[in-house]
Amino acid sequence: MSSRTVYLDHAAATRPYPEVIEAMKPYFLEHFGNPMSFHKYGGAPRAALEEARSAVADLIHAKAEEIFFTASGTESNNFAVKGVALALQKKGKHIITSAIEHYGVHHSCKMLERVGFETTYLPVDEFGRVDPEEVKKALRDDTILVSVMLANHEVGTIQPIREIAEITRERKVTLHTDARMAVGHIPVDVEELGVDLLTLSGQHFYAPKGAAALYIRKGVRIQPLIHCGVQEQGRRAGTENVPAIVGLGRAAAIIREKVAGEQKRLVVLRDRLEQGLTSMIDAVKVNGHPEHRLPHLSNICVNYMEGEGMIMMMVARGIMAASGSACSSKALKASHVLTAMGVDHAMAQGSILFSLGRETTEEEIDYVLAEMPPIVERLRMMSPIYQQQKG
Amino acid sequence: MSSRTVYLDHAAATRPYPEVIEAMKPYFLEHFGNPMSFHKYGGAPRAALEEARSAVADLIHAKAEEIFFTASGTESNNFAVKGVALALQKKGKHIITSAIEHYGVHHSCKMLERVGFETTYLPVDEFGRVDPEEVKKALRDDTILVSVMLANHEVGTIQPIREIAEITRERKVTLHTDARMAVGHIPVDVEELGVDLLTLSGQHFYAPKGAAALYIRKGVRIQPLIHCGVQEQGRRAGTENVPAIVGLGRAAAIIREKVAGEQKRLVVLRDRLEQGLTSMIDAVKVNGHPEHRLPHLSNICVNYMEGEGMIMMMVARGIMAASGSACSSKALKASHVLTAMGVDHAMAQGSILFSLGRETTEEEIDYVLAEMPPIVERLRMMSPIYQQQKG
Repeated sequence: MSSRTVYLDHAAATRPYPEVIEAMKPYFLEHFGNPMSFHKYGGAPRAALEEARSAVADLIHAKAEEIFFTASGTESNNFAVKGVALALQKKGKHIITSAIEHYGVHHSCKMLERVGFETTYLPVDEFGRVDPEEVKKALRDDTILVSVMLANHEVGTIQPIREIAEITRERKVTLHTDARMAVGHIPVDVEELGVDLLTLSGQHFYAPKGAAALYIRKGVRIQPLIHCGVQEQGRRAGTENVPAIVGLGRAAAIIREKVAGEQKRLVVLRDRLEQGLTSMIDAVKVNGHPEHRLPHLSNICVNYMEGEGMIMMMVARGIMAASGSACSSKALKASHVLTAMGVDHAMAQGSILFSLGRETTEEEIDYVLAEMPPIVERLRMMSPIYQQQKG
Repeated sequence: MSSRTVYLDHAAATRPYPEVIEAMKPYFLEHFGNPMSFHKYGGAPRAALEEARSAVADLIHAKAEEIFFTASGTESNNFAVKGVALALQKKGKHIITSAIEHYGVHHSCKMLERVGFETTYLPVDEFGRVDPEEVKKALRDDTILVSVMLANHEVGTIQPIREIAEITRERKVTLHTDARMAVGHIPVDVEELGVDLLTLSGQHFYAPKGAAALYIRKGVRIQPLIHCGVQEQGRRAGTENVPAIVGLGRAAAIIREKVAGEQKRLVVLRDRLEQGLTSMIDAVKVNGHPEHRLPHLSNICVNYMEGEGMIMMMVARGIMAASGSACSSKALKASHVLTAMGVDHAMAQGSILFSLGRETTEEEIDYVLAEMPPIVERLRMMSPIYQQQKG
C-alpha cells in the first residue's frame, strides 16, 4: 500500500471549505431553534435561511424567492420531474428527457410511466450531446416537461440548454435542467439559459452533504414531493436543516468569486492528465465533448481492461477515483451514459472517472501520470484478451 | 423585555447534546467521503452509517436492516404513507388514519385522494384518543394501510397502538405509526407495539436537524418516495447526510440510557406546571389524556384569550412556548387537533403548548408559574368578552 493519497473522486464527494463548517457551527448549539418559531429562538435561524437563499440565488442569477431548499440534488430532481408532471397532468402526460440523465431524473420518469405517463428518451451523439433538433422533433401537443441535464455527471459534456430553451419557450413547455455537476464549476445563469427549473447541490461545490436546492421560476406550476406544512412557501415540507443550508449558502458565496479562476486552473490540470495518459498508454480513449465539457471531469476508457481491477490497483497506489458512474459504482453495472454514446461494452467496462477539485495540484496529476502506465501494463499482462488482440 | 430566558418550545426544536455535535465533527472535513465509494474515503463514512443504524435500531428494538434514513420526520411520513399506498394500490385504495395526525401524514392522504385513493379519518374522544373499535369498524376489504400516530404532537395523548396492531395484523393490513414525538421520551419497542412502519426524528431527542428514519419491518411492501439509486437498499435515494446521521445515531445511543429517568423527571415538572396554572388562573383547561400522555408536552387552554397575544406577552417576559401546533404556528390557524377533540373554537384560540426538555428545571417552571397569572390577568382586563362573561 502507498502512503500517498491523491483524491480524484470529487464527483462522489468533496471536502467542504473549512470556513463553511465554521459558518455552520453556531446553528447547531446556539441558534438551534426552529425558523418557524415566533419567539427569538426562531429569529437567527430564519435570518440565516434567508441569507443563504440570497447567496444561492446570486450564484445562478435568480431571485431569492425562486430558491427552494431540499436535502439533496436527488430530491430536487425527483421534486422537479414528479412535481411538474403531477401538476400539469391534465394538460398532457408526455415527458422528454435524455438517455444520459442521472438516476434521479431517469427513475422519476420510470415511476411516472407506471402511473400513465409516457417518456421520450433523446439519443446523444458520440460526444454525449443532445441535438436540439431532436427536442423539436420529439415535442407533441401533450408534452408538459422537458428535462435535460446541463452537464453530464460521467463525461462532463455540456448540453445546449439555451438552444433547447428557445424551443420549449416557443412551445410553452416547462424546461428543467439538472445542473448539479455544473454549478460551482462553470458560470451558470438561469436567465441566460432560459430554464424554468434547475437543480443544484452544495456537496458538489464544497458545502457539506444535506442541503441542495431547486430553482423554480416564478409562475411555474409544481406539486410538492414532500407534503406537509408551511415551509418553503408550502412547496417543500419538513423542518429546514438550518446548519446545512447555512453551509450551502456560505459555499455559494465563496464559489461565486472563484468559479472562473478554478475553471481555468482545472482545465489545465485535466488536459495535462488526459494528454499524459493518451500519450503514454495505448488504446486509451477520452470520453466526452472535446469543447463543451466541464473542467473537472475526465472520463477515460482503457481498452482490454476491467475498470474495477484497475481501481483496486490504483487504490493500492493511493489514487482514489471511480469506475463508471459514482452513483452506481457499487452496483457494477455498465454505464448507461457510455452505452448511449455508442462506446462498446468491452471498452465501457474499462472506464475510469477522474474528478478534480479545489485541492488538486499539478504535482498530484504528475503522480498519477507516473503510476498509471505500470498499473495498466501489469493488468494487461494478465489479460488473455489483450494478449490475444496484441499477438 | 426580560433578560431571563425559559425555553419551553422543545416540540419545535431541541438543543442537541454537545457530545452529539462533537461526534459529528470528523465527518465534515476528515471523513467527508461518499459512503458508496469503493476506496478508503468511503470506508469511515460507511462504517459510521452502519453504527448509527444499529444505534437507532437498538433504541426501538428493531433490526439494523429495518432502519432507513431520511432527511426529516416529515419525509419519513410521506415515504411511509405514499410508499405503501402506491406499492399496494392493486390490492385496494382505502386508507385509515386519525383526524389528529401531523400534517405530513394528513397531506399525504389528501394527495393520494387526488389520484383515486379514499381515506377514512377516525374521530378521537375528548382526550384525543382513537378507539380501536373504530379502526375495526372502518376496515374494508380494500383497506391497505392504517396510519395512526403513537403520540400526538400538540396534546401528547398516547394512542392504543398495540390494540390497533392486533386488529390490523388479523386483517393483514399494513400499520404505520408516526412516533416522532414519542421516541426518546417514552420507551418505544416495535415488537411490543406490533407496527409495520414507524417514523422517528432525531431533532426530537437532541440530535441536530437533517436526519430522521423510517423503520420498515422486513417483508413490508413499499415504493420509494425519492427515486434514484442504490442507497438505503434502493429504497431512499440521495447521498446520505453522513454527519447528521452520525448525530442521530449518537443521540439515539445517549437517549436510550436516559429515557426512563427523563420521563419520570419531566412528568414531575409538567404536573407542577399544570397544577400551578390551573390553581392560580381561572378558566384554564389542560388538554390531552390524563393518563396516556407524553411526559414533556403540556397543552393549556386559557379561556377568553387569544393565544398569539399571550405568546407575545410571554416572550416579553422571556418565556418561549408555542401557540397551537408548532408546525402551523406561523399560519395562525385553529388547531385541527383541538377541534377534533371537541374543544370549542374560542377556547382553542387560547391554547398554549409548553414543551419541556432535557434542560428544563424546576426553577424555570416556578418562574413561569410566577409570571403567567399577571400576564393572563392583564390581557383579560383588556378583553371585552372576558369582562362581559364575568359580568
